[in-house]
Amino acid sequence: MTDRIFADIAPIAYEGEDSDNMLAFRHYDPGRIVLGKTMAEHLRLAVCYWHSFAWPGADIFGAGTFDRPWMPGEICTPERASLKLENAFDFFERLGAPFFCFHDVDAMATAATPEEHRRNLSDIVEQMARRMETGGMKLLWGTANLFSHPRYAAGGATSPDPEIFAWAAFQVREMLEATHRLGGANYVLWGGREGYDTILNTDLRQEMDQLGRFLNLVVEHKHKIGFPGTILIEPKPHEPTKHQYDRDTATVYGFLERYGLVDEVRVNIEANHATLAGNSFEHEIATAMALGIFGSIDINRGDPQNGWDTDQFPNDIPGLTLALLEILKGGGFTTGGFNFDAKVRRQSIDPVDLFHGHIGGIDVLARALLNAAAIIEDGRLGQFVEDRYAGWKGEFGRKALGELSLTDLSDHALQSGSDKRPASGRQEYLENLVNRFA
Amino acid sequence: MTDRIFADIAPIAYEGEDSDNMLAFRHYDPGRIVLGKTMAEHLRLAVCYWHSFAWPGADIFGAGTFDRPWMPGEICTPERASLKLENAFDFFERLGAPFFCFHDVDAMATAATPEEHRRNLSDIVEQMARRMETGGMKLLWGTANLFSHPRYAAGGATSPDPEIFAWAAFQVREMLEATHRLGGANYVLWGGREGYDTILNTDLRQEMDQLGRFLNLVVEHKHKIGFPGTILIEPKPHEPTKHQYDRDTATVYGFLERYGLVDEVRVNIEANHATLAGNSFEHEIATAMALGIFGSIDINRGDPQNGWDTDQFPNDIPGLTLALLEILKGGGFTTGGFNFDAKVRRQSIDPVDLFHGHIGGIDVLARALLNAAAIIEDGRLGQFVEDRYAGWKGEFGRKALGELSLTDLSDHALQSGSDKRPASGRQEYLENLVNRFA
Amino acid sequence: MTDRIFADIAPIAYEGEDSDNMLAFRHYDPGRIVLGKTMAEHLRLAVCYWHSFAWPGADIFGAGTFDRPWMPGEICTPERASLKLENAFDFFERLGAPFFCFHDVDAMATAATPEEHRRNLSDIVEQMARRMETGGMKLLWGTANLFSHPRYAAGGATSPDPEIFAWAAFQVREMLEATHRLGGANYVLWGGREGYDTILNTDLRQEMDQLGRFLNLVVEHKHKIGFPGTILIEPKPHEPTKHQYDRDTATVYGFLERYGLVDEVRVNIEANHATLAGNSFEHEIATAMALGIFGSIDINRGDPQNGWDTDQFPNDIPGLTLALLEILKGGGFTTGGFNFDAKVRRQSIDPVDLFHGHIGGIDVLARALLNAAAIIEDGRLGQFVEDRYAGWKGEFGRKALGELSLTDLSDHALQSGSDKRPASGRQEYLENLVNRFA
Amino acid sequence: MTDRIFADIAPIAYEGEDSDNMLAFRHYDPGRIVLGKTMAEHLRLAVCYWHSFAWPGADIFGAGTFDRPWMPGEICTPERASLKLENAFDFFERLGAPFFCFHDVDAMATAATPEEHRRNLSDIVEQMARRMETGGMKLLWGTANLFSHPRYAAGGATSPDPEIFAWAAFQVREMLEATHRLGGANYVLWGGREGYDTILNTDLRQEMDQLGRFLNLVVEHKHKIGFPGTILIEPKPHEPTKHQYDRDTATVYGFLERYGLVDEVRVNIEANHATLAGNSFEHEIATAMALGIFGSIDINRGDPQNGWDTDQFPNDIPGLTLALLEILKGGGFTTGGFNFDAKVRRQSIDPVDLFHGHIGGIDVLARALLNAAAIIEDGRLGQFVEDRYAGWKGEFGRKALGELSLTDLSDHALQSGSDKRPASGRQEYLENLVNRFA
Ligand SMILES: [Co+2]
Ligand SMILES: [Co+2]
Ligand SMILES: [Co+2]
Ligand SMILES: [Co+2]
Ligand SMILES: [Co+2]
Ligand SMILES: [Co+2]
Ligand SMILES: [Co+2]
Ligand SMILES: [Co+2]
Repeated sequence: MTDRIFADIAPIAYEGEDSDNMLAFRHYDPGRIVLGKTMAEHLRLAVCYWHSFAWPGADIFGAGTFDRPWMPGEICTPERASLKLENAFDFFERLGAPFFCFHDVDAMATAATPEEHRRNLSDIVEQMARRMETGGMKLLWGTANLFSHPRYAAGGATSPDPEIFAWAAFQVREMLEATHRLGGANYVLWGGREGYDTILNTDLRQEMDQLGRFLNLVVEHKHKIGFPGTILIEPKPHEPTKHQYDRDTATVYGFLERYGLVDEVRVNIEANHATLAGNSFEHEIATAMALGIFGSIDINRGDPQNGWDTDQFPNDIPGLTLALLEILKGGGFTTGGFNFDAKVRRQSIDPVDLFHGHIGGIDVLARALLNAAAIIEDGRLGQFVEDRYAGWKGEFGRKALGELSLTDLSDHALQSGSDKRPASGRQEYLENLVNRFA
Repeated sequence: MTDRIFADIAPIAYEGEDSDNMLAFRHYDPGRIVLGKTMAEHLRLAVCYWHSFAWPGADIFGAGTFDRPWMPGEICTPERASLKLENAFDFFERLGAPFFCFHDVDAMATAATPEEHRRNLSDIVEQMARRMETGGMKLLWGTANLFSHPRYAAGGATSPDPEIFAWAAFQVREMLEATHRLGGANYVLWGGREGYDTILNTDLRQEMDQLGRFLNLVVEHKHKIGFPGTILIEPKPHEPTKHQYDRDTATVYGFLERYGLVDEVRVNIEANHATLAGNSFEHEIATAMALGIFGSIDINRGDPQNGWDTDQFPNDIPGLTLALLEILKGGGFTTGGFNFDAKVRRQSIDPVDLFHGHIGGIDVLARALLNAAAIIEDGRLGQFVEDRYAGWKGEFGRKALGELSLTDLSDHALQSGSDKRPASGRQEYLENLVNRFA
Repeated sequence: MTDRIFADIAPIAYEGEDSDNMLAFRHYDPGRIVLGKTMAEHLRLAVCYWHSFAWPGADIFGAGTFDRPWMPGEICTPERASLKLENAFDFFERLGAPFFCFHDVDAMATAATPEEHRRNLSDIVEQMARRMETGGMKLLWGTANLFSHPRYAAGGATSPDPEIFAWAAFQVREMLEATHRLGGANYVLWGGREGYDTILNTDLRQEMDQLGRFLNLVVEHKHKIGFPGTILIEPKPHEPTKHQYDRDTATVYGFLERYGLVDEVRVNIEANHATLAGNSFEHEIATAMALGIFGSIDINRGDPQNGWDTDQFPNDIPGLTLALLEILKGGGFTTGGFNFDAKVRRQSIDPVDLFHGHIGGIDVLARALLNAAAIIEDGRLGQFVEDRYAGWKGEFGRKALGELSLTDLSDHALQSGSDKRPASGRQEYLENLVNRFA
Repeated sequence: MTDRIFADIAPIAYEGEDSDNMLAFRHYDPGRIVLGKTMAEHLRLAVCYWHSFAWPGADIFGAGTFDRPWMPGEICTPERASLKLENAFDFFERLGAPFFCFHDVDAMATAATPEEHRRNLSDIVEQMARRMETGGMKLLWGTANLFSHPRYAAGGATSPDPEIFAWAAFQVREMLEATHRLGGANYVLWGGREGYDTILNTDLRQEMDQLGRFLNLVVEHKHKIGFPGTILIEPKPHEPTKHQYDRDTATVYGFLERYGLVDEVRVNIEANHATLAGNSFEHEIATAMALGIFGSIDINRGDPQNGWDTDQFPNDIPGLTLALLEILKGGGFTTGGFNFDAKVRRQSIDPVDLFHGHIGGIDVLARALLNAAAIIEDGRLGQFVEDRYAGWKGEFGRKALGELSLTDLSDHALQSGSDKRPASGRQEYLENLVNRFA
């Protein structure tokens, strides 16, 4: 095997719906204008480094299945790190998504000490910068891995040991600066171990205060170094821990309010985390939009019958149509984008499977975008909702939400006397309407 | 059948662990002192009116099974309302829990107009007041039912129709004043329809703003009338709607922050709602304590294999021990208490089954209280947690949470160099320790 | 309001994809030929009586919301029964699905005694027969309601009381004969209470034996009266009970084997029951096909975030494409069909909403059928699977599944020596392939 | 660190309830007679090799945390295998559970070829036999790992490649014979990959036939070599695959019926797998008893909020009381026992934590046994159930289950006329009764 495993694969092109080529886009046409912006500008697609290049195809019951020359899952030497990087960028550039994302340890050579960590990260970042310059790839976001190393078994920011908190601060500082160096559009924190395995050994308030403090430190440092990107929290309810503090968007909102961060931090919503938390994906987006903290998306899907984070590639066009509709209604991405936090299945062992996964995912996003735009242009759905709440724009409605007291409202009800029933909610009609465009 | 169906049942007494009488308490000894307070003061037990007196034993697939002289589930005439009330208080007084809770429509005669609603509620409240005076029962909380009537099919406070918002205001005003009249310790709002069936017809931000406004109106009115009790929100993630805005304690906290209510409103945590939301019951309590919004408890249990609100009587002593531990650690109830929001199964058709349900529930709470107190008195669990976080009380820990910047912390990590692993979390040891007392 | 509430609605016609009429089919063209059969023959569509005509729009937290002249949810007089029947058939005939389904008590006037039950059922069946003759509607299946009446609170066939077992036998005999009288294609048993609320009061083996005996009695009676249709069991894991014996298709298969019924009884798979049981809908179909017990479908959908039987109209075209694919691969329906066991939401209060629900459901089935047929005609998916297992058709494969012993196979492995890895499972490629047709 | 890490820990002794020693049993007194047998005979306790000695403390998001001299998680040399074995038996013997269980690859040195596999397994089995002889440990069951190696990514018995089927046959033959050599009481098959990741690439019937054939081969071989133990299947619904064929006990029963194995194979029920499958643990036991296929237990617990196999040590005494009750009612174990398929948490990094986990688990089983025995001796629960079904022992009941036809039963109901309601199911009373003993 050559050590450049994607060498034989031609760049993925848009060939239109009639193409029979499984290694082409049938819907994603980057320059096509939709509601005044190109598809590429709408979707801001990113490939993640970890699942496709750092994961060996292992799961909790079995060893890695992927045969890659850079040996994912084993000690990463500087040579392997470089080889992995060249292959990753070979893939990025052939696929044609403009962005990528990575954790520090996904890309760098394994380090034993803080100094080595700093040096190895710095080395790979310089290689990355060069390859980005050549090929034009951009960084959607960077992040520090505060969950894989045994030191973080009890958390990073929420560790019971302040020395580990300091280690976490070190890693985040390095990676925030690396992200800045690479022109990243955002910086993400996912608190995979920022939770507890058992409430018996846990001081909840102490840990929340640590996490609040940590996040404030990150925000301060961002301003200090002049990083212009957005700081994002990625909610997840549990896994690996029993309970994580950043359970879902509404929980993160309360946390940001409590620690004075609501104007500084936004959410990176992952589809699979949304459903694990008992919310629909579109609900999480709509909530973030309503609360003013929508940031970015980790796009993937879970399995409806499996209770863990399967991180599969998205394939549900009608479901994604609802998600895109909420994004478009809310004004779309600013610094965020769609990052494929998705992995091919453990049995999808060939390099070409990485293309199939991403091509399918990109094409369903493209179709969902087109569908959502068509629904907006059609106007009936939007009009229905506006009409449904029209009473609140009338005189009584405006007063009811404004100056009237409970007594005033109560007197109004007493005087109007006759009872009111709601109008039909028309759920089935609206579902049919949406299906016309899906 | 007589129309006083509990006439033959003697008051339930504490008879101690060796008693073989299934209609006696074996653990709940109201006057027994535990950690400086009586059991009755700790637990503040309440019986709910709805499940035991207004529900006919129907479920979604079947008709009512309970043969009661006041005909639950049918039109409630003033005579039936009075008969129901006398039976309910017969039950309350024989059981010996000091409190009860009710929704307006649980107790009053069915009304067709707002005037009739006001009159019927007022009539039954006066009957209630007389019987409370005679028998010494107290009201833990009152609440208005804003979910059963068809007018509320699309919500009360979050209805798309401001006229229905006004109806909701009317009902809450009446019931808040009734609660005040009866000396209630709290007033509860459960938003069973304050959510959506489909996001397609829903304006999330509009509805949240309505709910925030409504809750502010309630708080204003409370102060205006001088009601000294606490206003409580009862979180629930869904059911009857697909998604309810007051999903869980953390979500409610964010909502309270957003609408400026964090010092005015607390949570009434229901055990079955906690688990439906994907949280453990003890987690919800610990979270409410940590966030300073712990109010009261609706005690019951769900079925681990069933995904709806089964509202069964609690029977899990070890699980409740953890809940009581969090309550005791947080300082216990102030105005709140344990309300049995629990119903006997549809097959438990005899009046005596109502006693079995409540006696069992009370006794497991009593045992859980004793267990939790023993764990606290033992001290080992508390000490373990304190030791685990001891580093944060040292010099570096205090600074880390205080003055140090991300750069300072990062430099510290670089200098300390050698890596740190967490100490054993000792989960199994702690579980064994707890089981010594369960 | 007139008492014929669908009078103003014109029959629903196929108008093609470009139609803007929300009360027309855009995909369901009954006479269109797909893989050699008409769409109507493939789908065998049925409307259910219960959700659309007997349910008042109530849920466990609220009263009925539907204003219908035949007063669903209240005592059904013979007049109301007739009025309901005329309206139901007005609806059936306008919609244009060729079949319907009903429980005895959905259609008949309420009865207090067995004689009255027999008489009232017989009366409505004769009215039904006349209207069927006039309008051409056919009965897909009949069924007896053995779960709503309080007598069945502890089950029908599995009741601890043999007198109730006899009542259940009476109801089934009457309804099986009524189904035969009406030319029904199948007879269904859904065991809504054939399970337990608590294992504490339950003798599992006794109850399974009762159920096995009951089902054998039904099969004997079917043969005795010459009913040519199929006897079907509808699996469901729980709700209303904690645990139902007919949990899913594989469980029913084991039950049929145990009681000697595997050649006599098949399954009626409900989509929402499949997912409540932790299986995908397509898995249940594929399993029934593999085990030779596929019978019919109750088509609807659950809510992925709600743990109860929401019985919503289906709207997921890609998901249904997989279901239709399994049905087509297995040879399609014989006596079975697609019964819409689906209800409009409680807020969808207008008569026209019943049309929206069914039209949408029919059109998504039609699209799914077309998609699945296209996948089969394309051939790539089928070929992939055939190739994947090709080794089993070779010499060694045939022997391995036939004559070789464990020792022989073990010796073979020892001799072949070098290790084998599976070929890529190509999941992402196959998902993309399916999405081309969805 | 010494390479014998348990050297300093004294054998665990029974010290009674008042002991304050966390490294002693407070309830498990092996020789104590309960219902005519010793505790040791009732419980037949086993320690598993894999979680405690072969797992490094890794999870899907993080590296191993356990610092052990035999280096779990890395290539196992013959030296490491021996060192692991000595430590494992040091642990077994100190704990005092009489049995252990293992997979081939848990214990043996890593092998590259079938010959090496045979040799390495044989070597470690001989070492094991010697240490068993010295220390008196017995083997509850052996099993072959057909899921961790990449060759099994698409299954062993259900692989699309017959060469891999042969490999699986080789491994099972070797391990079945090794189990026989070591005097094992049972042989277990857990089908972790015997399922599918996507139904799209799967031929369900083909795979079930392969699995049926494979199991028949194992049974034949057992008889051929004269292995007197029981062959057991361990059901699990999913994880690692999306769907596993041996979903739960009822599913396995149907499978055994289909392939003629119902008298040859029984189930090994794992508590955590039961709950993942949507069943209660006690339901699975009761079902296996009712169907005559109860074999053995993998005892552990899942987390009620987490949807994957957490394999935690059991700690729920009331829940286990129900399980023990079903086991005692069914006659107890024959060849089976309680195997601790449980692992200490990833943060429980100290050797002593392995003792805490097992001691706690053993003590809760001992208490559950005592509780269940007390319930049986009390007799009220059993009598209630007997009385509840008493009608079936009367004349009509016996006939109803025997000779009467559907018509006879129907006529009986018509004649008896007046309606029947069930008696109270008394669920709350029975729950209280059980709690008296828990
Ligand atoms: Co993510
Ligand atoms: Co994920
Ligand atoms: Co409640
Ligand atoms: Co509830
Ligand atoms: Co159905
Ligand atoms: Co259903
Ligand atoms: Co196991
Ligand atoms: Co397990």
